[in-house]
Amino acid sequence: MENSKLKAFIPFFYLVWSDDLLSQKEFVTLQEFIGSQRWISEKEQEFLLSKVAISVPPSRAQLAEWKSEIDTVIHHHPLLKSIFEVSMALAENNSYIKDHTADFLQLENDLGILGEEAIGNFKTRSKTFTSNYQSAPTFEIEKLTQILDGEQSTIIKKVKSIISRPKFAYETSTDTAIYREKVYDWCKILADENLGNMAYPKQYGGGENIADYFAIMETLSYHDLSLVIKFGVQFGLWGMSIQSLGTEKHYSKYLKDIGSLHLPGCFAMTETNHGSNVKGLETTATYNHNDQTFTIHTPHEKAQKEYIGNAAVHGQMATVFAKLIIDEIDYGVNAFIVPIRDTNSKILKGIKIGDCGLKMGLNGVDNGTIRFENVVIPKENMLDRFASVNEEGKFESPIPSDNRRFFTMLGTLVGGRIGIPRSALAAAKSGLTIAIQYSDKRRQFGPEGGSEVPILNYRIHQRRLIPLLAKTYAIHFALQYVTNRYIAKTESEMPEIEALAAGMKAYSTWSTTDVLQECREVCGGKGYLSENRIDALKNDTEIYTTFEGDNTVLMQLVAKNRLSEFRKAFGEMDAMGIINYVFENAKTAISEKNPIVTRKTEETHLLDDEFHLSAFQYREKTILASAAKRLKKLIDGGLEPYDAFNVVQHQMIDVAEAYLERIVLEQFQKAMEAIEDKKSKEIMTNLCQLYALSQMEKNKGWYLEDGYMEAAKTKAIRKMVNQLCWEIRPDAVSLVKAFDIPDSCLAAPIALD
Amino acid sequence: MENSKLKAFIPFFYLVWSDDLLSQKEFVTLQEFIGSQRWISEKEQEFLLSKVAISVPPSRAQLAEWKSEIDTVIHHHPLLKSIFEVSMALAENNSYIKDHTADFLQLENDLGILGEEAIGNFKTRSKTFTSNYQSAPTFEIEKLTQILDGEQSTIIKKVKSIISRPKFAYETSTDTAIYREKVYDWCKILADENLGNMAYPKQYGGGENIADYFAIMETLSYHDLSLVIKFGVQFGLWGMSIQSLGTEKHYSKYLKDIGSLHLPGCFAMTETNHGSNVKGLETTATYNHNDQTFTIHTPHEKAQKEYIGNAAVHGQMATVFAKLIIDEIDYGVNAFIVPIRDTNSKILKGIKIGDCGLKMGLNGVDNGTIRFENVVIPKENMLDRFASVNEEGKFESPIPSDNRRFFTMLGTLVGGRIGIPRSALAAAKSGLTIAIQYSDKRRQFGPEGGSEVPILNYRIHQRRLIPLLAKTYAIHFALQYVTNRYIAKTESEMPEIEALAAGMKAYSTWSTTDVLQECREVCGGKGYLSENRIDALKNDTEIYTTFEGDNTVLMQLVAKNRLSEFRKAFGEMDAMGIINYVFENAKTAISEKNPIVTRKTEETHLLDDEFHLSAFQYREKTILASAAKRLKKLIDGGLEPYDAFNVVQHQMIDVAEAYLERIVLEQFQKAMEAIEDKKSKEIMTNLCQLYALSQMEKNKGWYLEDGYMEAAKTKAIRKMVNQLCWEIRPDAVSLVKAFDIPDSCLAAPIALD
Repeated sequence: MENSKLKAFIPFFYLVWSDDLLSQKEFVTLQEFIGSQRWISEKEQEFLLSKVAISVPPSRAQLAEWKSEIDTVIHHHPLLKSIFEVSMALAENNSYIKDHTADFLQLENDLGILGEEAIGNFKTRSKTFTSNYQSAPTFEIEKLTQILDGEQSTIIKKVKSIISRPKFAYETSTDTAIYREKVYDWCKILADENLGNMAYPKQYGGGENIADYFAIMETLSYHDLSLVIKFGVQFGLWGMSIQSLGTEKHYSKYLKDIGSLHLPGCFAMTETNHGSNVKGLETTATYNHNDQTFTIHTPHEKAQKEYIGNAAVHGQMATVFAKLIIDEIDYGVNAFIVPIRDTNSKILKGIKIGDCGLKMGLNGVDNGTIRFENVVIPKENMLDRFASVNEEGKFESPIPSDNRRFFTMLGTLVGGRIGIPRSALAAAKSGLTIAIQYSDKRRQFGPEGGSEVPILNYRIHQRRLIPLLAKTYAIHFALQYVTNRYIAKTESEMPEIEALAAGMKAYSTWSTTDVLQECREVCGGKGYLSENRIDALKNDTEIYTTFEGDNTVLMQLVAKNRLSEFRKAFGEMDAMGIINYVFENAKTAISEKNPIVTRKTEETHLLDDEFHLSAFQYREKTILASAAKRLKKLIDGGLEPYDAFNVVQHQMIDVAEAYLERIVLEQFQKAMEAIEDKKSKEIMTNLCQLYALSQMEKNKGWYLEDGYMEAAKTKAIRKMVNQLCWEIRPDAVSLVKAFDIPDSCLAAPIALD
Repeated sequence: MENSKLKAFIPFFYLVWSDDLLSQKEFVTLQEFIGSQRWISEKEQEFLLSKVAISVPPSRAQLAEWKSEIDTVIHHHPLLKSIFEVSMALAENNSYIKDHTADFLQLENDLGILGEEAIGNFKTRSKTFTSNYQSAPTFEIEKLTQILDGEQSTIIKKVKSIISRPKFAYETSTDTAIYREKVYDWCKILADENLGNMAYPKQYGGGENIADYFAIMETLSYHDLSLVIKFGVQFGLWGMSIQSLGTEKHYSKYLKDIGSLHLPGCFAMTETNHGSNVKGLETTATYNHNDQTFTIHTPHEKAQKEYIGNAAVHGQMATVFAKLIIDEIDYGVNAFIVPIRDTNSKILKGIKIGDCGLKMGLNGVDNGTIRFENVVIPKENMLDRFASVNEEGKFESPIPSDNRRFFTMLGTLVGGRIGIPRSALAAAKSGLTIAIQYSDKRRQFGPEGGSEVPILNYRIHQRRLIPLLAKTYAIHFALQYVTNRYIAKTESEMPEIEALAAGMKAYSTWSTTDVLQECREVCGGKGYLSENRIDALKNDTEIYTTFEGDNTVLMQLVAKNRLSEFRKAFGEMDAMGIINYVFENAKTAISEKNPIVTRKTEETHLLDDEFHLSAFQYREKTILASAAKRLKKLIDGGLEPYDAFNVVQHQMIDVAEAYLERIVLEQFQKAMEAIEDKKSKEIMTNLCQLYALSQMEKNKGWYLEDGYMEAAKTKAIRKMVNQLCWEIRPDAVSLVKAFDIPDSCLAAPIALD
């Protein structure tokens, strides 16, 4: 191509032949362009057209030559910005080309080439800011770990040292029988270390330390989750059912052996036909006054106990929930100790055990079914803290209502709804540690000519992981709060604490499901290999959203508690009353809903923790008041209450969620304020802001619908979430290292390589 | 309680002692109320207070007596609406009580009792509309099945009959070796039935029917998904790589044996260090002109081939992607046939095979790693459709750009991106069939005194499943469309079809992940048992979002294609140009964005398919134009294009998603219009409306931010989604039955009981 004006076409030739986004249509565009230019002679046109004939491609060498010419020009004129400018330079500012600037720019457009972007492909730019970004911690990891562990630091260290022993190497056999035995052996070691009886009274060999017990549950969850559940079934469900529902005679007889795992047992509540609606359990316990016994019986197949941990292999006894029948009168569901195996593991007469078989996860736990065929137990086996049969064979109870009594019994078992979300939290921490450490090292794609970039530098990747990291930290502090409230509970706080625990169980376990889903996906194929443990974490925790109460059902309980509290506070309030309630006082109402605030987008405002908490509180109160009004309207309008509750069921979930989000933010802010170490406080502040803003982003539809925010503000929030993700990214690896999960527990090669 | 005025207190006594939402605080409230009422004598007060002393509960019999008195009054006065009205009736309209109406109403409020709701608990109402609702199909299932199966009806029936044979009973062993052999045996049966070679040319023994091939992939997916993937690896990836990248000499030599499964093989592209960025593969194929061979070599451990299906056990050959090196010049990635085992399954010299070990799912597929230690293959083993080495040992290709050539090669393999989303679709159909059939039978909770209610009658349950059912139907038709476009493709349509397939692969597989997550959760504990198959469906499809292209990466490809199309159409458009583009013409702009439309909430408008499509198109175009403008602004502002793309990466995902949603809706509407059977058309219309509205609900934040809708409208949409779910519910079971999945494939006891 000696003719210098024709050189202007070189970039276009090169692009149509090399750009993989261009198709045959673009050849036609270019051919037509060449044909339409009157300043090119017929012969020149022919020559140019020969370069864009689809059937006669240029040689690879020709393509290389074009590229080399373009490279040279760009090298000498580094400020060139568009393809047309490159053309001009190649054509040595030929005046014909200059005169047809508009035509060439149009051609660029018609081909869909964005100048700078196309030129970028010719330049070697290893120095983009995306590729230069990397881990650079701003705080001391150990200090943050100490803040997280707090007063439980000693027990946490002890548990970590135990589960790091060689004996705790993960079981890799897919044989369920082998796995179950391994888990049982691990449990025995933990019992020998006095971890199982940590919550029991000292007089029965226990540690009488509930805070430590929950810390043990959480820390064990860095290891195998079947172990945690088996541990929880034995020492939590089985042991605590004795402690919470029984009396002195039961404690002295059983607690020590349960705590030492000499008496493995079950918690037999759920039946095939009654899982969530346990009030409807059908197993019967019929009192026989002549020989002072109860007969435990399963009336039909679907009334069998199901999913019972420890039932299929190891359990020797079970706390069985059954309807108490005395003289043909039904006194509601009560609890009874029923032996199911002898000490040689032989199943006792009248007991039929089934095996739940393979499950999605937790296959180290021997879940089974239990049926009772007129099994007779002595009278003292009734757990009689809340109800008993007296000497005359009459029913006695300090709680006259069968319904209220049963829910009081369930209320004493609420500890399980703290253990499970804390276990879920630990699983989320493990998943995030694996995914973030891998993403910091895994490189894929990069700028033209530069090396590949850690995938954690990509915005999407940050958006997938870093807000969830913030949420996991947030939940950590919220669960500390729930634990503390539970430990310090008074009778009158019980309904609130029960709702709080039920709600946080749902919030934490759903969050873990989300976290592990993202972790699996962002780790790609590596995330699918069992050796990297997201498999086990994900499948084991999958049932966390169901057991200890189906999350959706629990959220409705939480919402009902909120509604009841709301009504107590406000009753049949009028419109002004509700406005006052929502805004605390009318002045706030005016200031928060005025256009200056709904549109406010400066950084200091968006990052202000008072703004965050107000927005969460406003949402919580508004949703609650609106659900209450709607329910009342429906019922006043003639709907059966049962139907009305069904109509607003999805709003009930919102009521509960908004309440829980406020609690979580509030506790995160409080925990943050208490931090003394300056640098730890700074990074926690960033995480807290990210939690607040990413939840607001998630709820932006609601805020816009309500008018609490305008579009400018929700858009600014989205931008700020991006910015915070980017700012936190250099600390991301340190933030997961602060969880301080033993390497032997993480185990994933992609996290440790 | 002889004194009739005091009887007014009975309902309150009963409630504080029996309602499980009331706490100790309420006793105090009631005590204070009693103490403050001047019209009660001191003695009467004492009597009343004795009934609410926490330490002296009433007997169970006393509680029953109170309840009986309340029941009697309600029975005689069925119109009583509040607790106070009951009190009045019990007190026989005593004037003292009447005079203190306000006090009593205040007490009700202070206790948080909602009159109607509390009264509901005394009434036996088995006739609520929630509990009376049930399955009641409005259409003929067989007709809808025929509409879904269309022209592939015959092959679909054939495949269903094969996978229903006793030999296809699911493998239940957890031993991977046994499972892999079972899957391999199943594959042989399918090959014998001429299903594997369905897409190959007739002259090589094939069926030359691509449409049938995809229908086979989808239908097989009702059975074991390891089987589908093994089938896809052998006949799709391995066979199609020969057919797409090779030439006549390869076809005649290999295709028949591949189609009959006499030659099991692999598709060896992915390497440990290069999964998404396959352009960066590091395996080398060095040409040796002296003996006309290539030497295939793995330069370092992380350049090994990884996750390769058929590699660990059965594969005898592999299509290996490697950088072609001739005279030390790198000609980019090309494909070569490399033998890895002899016919006795002995691994050949220089080949090192690893086993990927246990995976989250698909454990019936023998994924492995392959390393090559200077493995020499003859020259004819180069798949030379797009590039070859000539007689003189020089490189030749009709596509001069290495980059474009490689992406052209990848483009020919796009069929995999149709097979996988169709397999994902089938898995979603299986999950929904299991979950919906179970939810129609599973009963839990119910109105006081009535029997328990099918859980599918609950709003939340409907909201969790029915929009996903609609989406699954929508995706069915969209994938039919993608398949048809692929089969009828022309060269110039390829970039569009590649983007479409990549996008629908991501859309369908993500949807399946969501669907199966909901299915697992709504089935509770039963959903966790492996026997109910959600386990396998969920874990097997989990990797679908990664393989055949990571979804996030694919979505960016789609977005880049859309941006390129956008630029071709509009180039450097000005503001008015973009408005015209978004609204087609300015008149629409005015009519769609005027307050009457943004607030329009009547039912006919909300259900109007033109409104739906306009809203989807508007969103698609606005997001695309805005991303293009933003990118241009960033680059014009001096950002490196690579950085600019990273900054807008999350918007790119939105661009792709909005495009895909529009395609899916458009194709659903078109398919719906073509339906002749009136009743099938009606139910499909409902589903299509639900798909449209539930997507709009999901995107309401965007619509509100943009101003395309106002709050009144998004709220009306939410209501309409509820209404449609409710209306579709009686057809839900029939809608999943229309998928016509063989019972032996469903297998789940909870679906079939």
